[in-house]
Amino acid sequence: MRLLLIHSDYIEYEAQKKTKMAEADPVPKDGMTEALTVFTAVEAVDEEDIDDVVAQSVAEIEKTATQLAVKNLLIYPYAHLSSDLSSPEAAVAALSAIERRLNETGRYEVKRAPFGWYKKFKLSCKGHPLSELSKTIVPGAGAAVKEKKEVTHEF
Amino acid sequence: MRLLLIHSDYIEYEAQKKTKMAEADPVPKDGMTEALTVFTAVEAVDEEDIDDVVAQSVAEIEKTATQLAVKNLLIYPYAHLSSDLSSPEAAVAALSAIERRLNETGRYEVKRAPFGWYKKFKLSCKGHPLSELSKTIVPGAGAAVKEKKEVTHEF
Ligand SMILES: [Mg+2]
Repeated sequence: MRLLLIHSDYIEYEAQKKTKMAEADPVPKDGMTEALTVFTAVEAVDEEDIDDVVAQSVAEIEKTATQLAVKNLLIYPYAHLSSDLSSPEAAVAALSAIERRLNETGRYEVKRAPFGWYKKFKLSCKGHPLSELSKTIVPGAGAAVKEKKEVTHEF
Repeated sequence: MRLLLIHSDYIEYEAQKKTKMAEADPVPKDGMTEALTVFTAVEAVDEEDIDDVVAQSVAEIEKTATQLAVKNLLIYPYAHLSSDLSSPEAAVAALSAIERRLNETGRYEVKRAPFGWYKKFKLSCKGHPLSELSKTIVPGAGAAVKEKKEVTHEF
């Protein structure tokens, strides 16, 4: 799982056109202000343990949201963050699970842009040192994660 | 080299704060409309042959600019596209060389956002099927490139 977290003045999207893997019944157009935009690519290796990468991703998103005191989260599928993607079915399952678990905390307003659609978007990144963070998450918890090379950039 | 090419209604940036690898004398604030934004990460493997990856990157950027009939190019350093970055020196050399070679064609207006600065940015992605393209470029031309796995996503 690759995550790119952007502390955003605003994020807006509008679905334009289906790809062959388009999710049915999407929210076609939406947006948020004062949000954490979570660009997300689900990777092939994640299919070894989707529940685990979902749990780790939710923990990362919550950690960042807490640091930034952000209540608005927009999950945005972003295939371009990886060159080794999961199946579309696994991606939709993982993205939906991340959305649901964040919602269940009751601490956030959560939205999710649709998977498999070409989308317009407008984004404003705040630009402070913690406003852009990327994470690579792989299946396996604790020490195992380190071995498999967890990579964090703050720049 | 990882490239993420976004056909943009507008791209604007404003440098906010230096990192320890900040480029000196940057253009602190700039932007373009009707532009191809070229988010770029220079990778460790690129140091094996910077000239070659620069030449391949320039060719890719020109191919996309031609397809989209875009004359405005903004090169934007984006470390978050890779988990295996080159040295800062190699990155600045590669980014500057891409900028210079595109300028030398005389076909484009070219700008480059500074390396090693935290930056605000605002971006509007057009959302048509060719408006977001990513490429992974590795040293080695022609057949060698294929063997080393050149990956292109249109989605
Ligand atoms: Mg990678």
